[in-house]
Amino acid sequence: MTRRGRRHGGRSGNTRRTAAAVKQNPWALPVNSDAPTEPLDEDGVHAIHDGAMRVLEEIGIEILCEEAKDIFARAGCIVNPDSDNVRMGRDFIMEQVKKAPPMFHITPRNPARQVQMGGDRVLFGNVGSPPNCSDLDRGRRVGDRQSYQDLIKLTQYFNCMHMVLGYPVEPLDIHPSVRHLDCLFDALTLTDKVVHAYSLGKERIEDGMELVRIAAGLSHEEFEASPRMFTNVNSGSPLKWDFNMLDGAMRMARRGQPVILTPFTLSGAMAPITVVGAVMQQTAEALSAIALLQLINPGCPVMFGSFTSNVDMSSGAPAFGTPEYMRATQISGQMARFYGLPLRASNACAANTPDAQAAWESAFSLWACISSGTNLVYHAAGWLEGGLCASYEKFLMDCETVQQMIHYMQPMSAGEDEIAFDAIREVGSDGQFFSASHTLERYETAFYAPFLSDLRNFETWEETGSVATPERANSKWKQILKEFKAPPMDEAIREELEAFVALRKEQGGAPTDF
Amino acid sequence: MTRRGRRHGGRSGNTRRTAAAVKQNPWALPVNSDAPTEPLDEDGVHAIHDGAMRVLEEIGIEILCEEAKDIFARAGCIVNPDSDNVRMGRDFIMEQVKKAPPMFHITPRNPARQVQMGGDRVLFGNVGSPPNCSDLDRGRRVGDRQSYQDLIKLTQYFNCMHMVLGYPVEPLDIHPSVRHLDCLFDALTLTDKVVHAYSLGKERIEDGMELVRIAAGLSHEEFEASPRMFTNVNSGSPLKWDFNMLDGAMRMARRGQPVILTPFTLSGAMAPITVVGAVMQQTAEALSAIALLQLINPGCPVMFGSFTSNVDMSSGAPAFGTPEYMRATQISGQMARFYGLPLRASNACAANTPDAQAAWESAFSLWACISSGTNLVYHAAGWLEGGLCASYEKFLMDCETVQQMIHYMQPMSAGEDEIAFDAIREVGSDGQFFSASHTLERYETAFYAPFLSDLRNFETWEETGSVATPERANSKWKQILKEFKAPPMDEAIREELEAFVALRKEQGGAPTDF
Repeated sequence: MTRRGRRHGGRSGNTRRTAAAVKQNPWALPVNSDAPTEPLDEDGVHAIHDGAMRVLEEIGIEILCEEAKDIFARAGCIVNPDSDNVRMGRDFIMEQVKKAPPMFHITPRNPARQVQMGGDRVLFGNVGSPPNCSDLDRGRRVGDRQSYQDLIKLTQYFNCMHMVLGYPVEPLDIHPSVRHLDCLFDALTLTDKVVHAYSLGKERIEDGMELVRIAAGLSHEEFEASPRMFTNVNSGSPLKWDFNMLDGAMRMARRGQPVILTPFTLSGAMAPITVVGAVMQQTAEALSAIALLQLINPGCPVMFGSFTSNVDMSSGAPAFGTPEYMRATQISGQMARFYGLPLRASNACAANTPDAQAAWESAFSLWACISSGTNLVYHAAGWLEGGLCASYEKFLMDCETVQQMIHYMQPMSAGEDEIAFDAIREVGSDGQFFSASHTLERYETAFYAPFLSDLRNFETWEETGSVATPERANSKWKQILKEFKAPPMDEAIREELEAFVALRKEQGGAPTDF
Repeated sequence: MTRRGRRHGGRSGNTRRTAAAVKQNPWALPVNSDAPTEPLDEDGVHAIHDGAMRVLEEIGIEILCEEAKDIFARAGCIVNPDSDNVRMGRDFIMEQVKKAPPMFHITPRNPARQVQMGGDRVLFGNVGSPPNCSDLDRGRRVGDRQSYQDLIKLTQYFNCMHMVLGYPVEPLDIHPSVRHLDCLFDALTLTDKVVHAYSLGKERIEDGMELVRIAAGLSHEEFEASPRMFTNVNSGSPLKWDFNMLDGAMRMARRGQPVILTPFTLSGAMAPITVVGAVMQQTAEALSAIALLQLINPGCPVMFGSFTSNVDMSSGAPAFGTPEYMRATQISGQMARFYGLPLRASNACAANTPDAQAAWESAFSLWACISSGTNLVYHAAGWLEGGLCASYEKFLMDCETVQQMIHYMQPMSAGEDEIAFDAIREVGSDGQFFSASHTLERYETAFYAPFLSDLRNFETWEETGSVATPERANSKWKQILKEFKAPPMDEAIREELEAFVALRKEQGGAPTDF
């Protein structure tokens, strides 16, 4: 696989460099020890809680799933016989929500890639589910399997990407009936990180669990003994849970696999125009499904998902990385802590191209995640256009900023070494610190070293072609894909995966009537 | 002056649009009510304090100003007769620092533009002092008076720019001996906001004070009665204060005018390679000068200036908007609160062009300011290239993000109106909120409306030319400059300013032997 032999071949254009494409920090699960920013006081948190409880008690929520309605009815909730409306009391909800663990681990096929959801950790993963992708060479296009695999490889490559959060682009060249089989196969063979399966009908989620089980070489009992993968489900805001989402969530919960409950509460469109009202509705929607899953399997791992942002009131278009998004995410953090649930939020932006707007919207979104105490940052790399496009260049730009944030989160101390009194004495008033012994001992690791930012002065930058950020990212991702090596997998397991995929394709895959 | 008469003139290319170039929030002094992020615990803060005290007690600082040395000597400090080294004890320093006010106001010629330095306020101003400027049409060039005036006009135009923080670009086509006269004249006639004068020799700072006094129509006594302008001085790190800086600072302090003391402590170059050590050195340098000014005029207004960032250890180039910059700024906030002093920090970046890197570095810097409790954000708009270039386009991009942060800082509440229970009941499970009465009552002001971000979908964006952020900024600043109207000034005052400038030019201005 390696082309090391050509290093001395004299073909300068093709010779490989020994240096890795990107200087990375090692794999680690970052600890966020900053106190979260809390826009509301305790009364405000209680007002949102009370509002959410009143919504579920007095207005109720549509549950488009007979099985779920039966479960709610048996638990004493008020199920309207003439509609799908279900109402539930606050004591019931809180009793169920209390069963959910505040923190849990997910172990993928490579146990070294185990992740912790909750507590003081904040993890990051790739953009999920855009129908389009783009890069500077080929422009914007609908997703295909090649692009899907490319972006999956980038997710595996970067240590700051802790999990595979869904398809980084929808491969529309694969028929929907079997797409989940090829996609999961690729994700499980090209990465060794935790993967996600979509809740889009029982076949897809069941096949997903089976593929993950096979890839990790587990018995069914071992698979069900602890979290091995996860799904994310979205409510059909306002106040509705669709069949496929609930069905997938319940199948996962029964087998002890984690479910992230993420209402799609865009303030001004599917939720009230006030940020506080939108988060209140988000809370009601998420808690109703969490209560259902805790009824089914008490203590099953769930996450409180926040996706509350606002729309542009002049066009109705979703806006991301806005002041409203930041506050909604921070308030969601307050609610997650109030209920003792791990929190998911996102690195989202509305920009159509990986330019300055994309960068500031993403930076705002990421700081919203950090300042809110978010535990899992969805869409942390590659997202453009409000989620409609995965950009190769943006993927690398986001990994650069995520790496910086991870460096930022390193704990600070002010011991004698850090205070550096002796170094200051050594240098005095007429020297500089470049050559001080205190500097020489530390210069290699003292500061975060960016792989994409260009810190050279203007003249040097201009002489070397005035290469702007997306162009630098473009050459980097090509280098990464060229160097990419899939993580090792036992040949017997690969064959078992292949056989399962072949069998299920023969059987017709999943129905496509949705 | 207005060209309103041409509105109906039929020359479509030149007809004025009635809509303003930029939708702005009204002038206001933003309140930052978020709890600051504190990377160090109380022991850490004490360790930095103790280190700074030890530096001033045991190592001392070079004071290249005989008058200042005399003042220190008379106060009992140890002045080395064979050098410029001055050592001072912690009790002395703390006694002086305690005299400094935790908060003060500065009133420019238009009292409606009064600003508050300190407390819970965070104010913003333009980039100061770059020798170059750039825009997309003319590229990068050395500064001239036309560009200086353009950028001053942008500073006046934007309500989120609270003060004129020095020359937004150095007008190198004006001879240095008289540059300060033309620049202050322009700043005082093209804006009505608080202005800054450089401490570069006694003539420049004295002329600056005189011009500000005349522009506000004040007697000398009235001028000295309260702050009317300010200066910023930088130490020659490590551990040195130059003559001009101290001389200017002392002249300002004597007349009750504010001084910002900003060490230039780049970690790894002019300060230790540890962020904590660099902030410790910054603290020692700033406090030594604050002590001097409090000796001269007890209670005079001063600010603790933080400019600690790191260098790129591979090139020695300064880096900004880095994780290290963020932590240094937050720790500086802890020190400022420990000493009860208002804090100045900056919106800095290293990027050479207004692209994504510039945007994320600036977003990181701005969030460092917000999360540290910074009271004055220097260089908040227009800075590129580590301060060597003022970009017209970046100026607008920064104003967009600063406006968003100001919107972000609006206080949140969770009253009945915000909780929006009735709106959720009204819409139910099958509706949307666009037409809800709760929405219609609020949609015009509910969300921040960006003037530069493009929130339209990809197709619309593409159909209208795929205009990226800097290009959008380019057309906006042209529109602003076309529409610009200088704030009113009494004709007699303008003549007095002109006469003073003419007289001082006749007298030769300031010596240029520095």
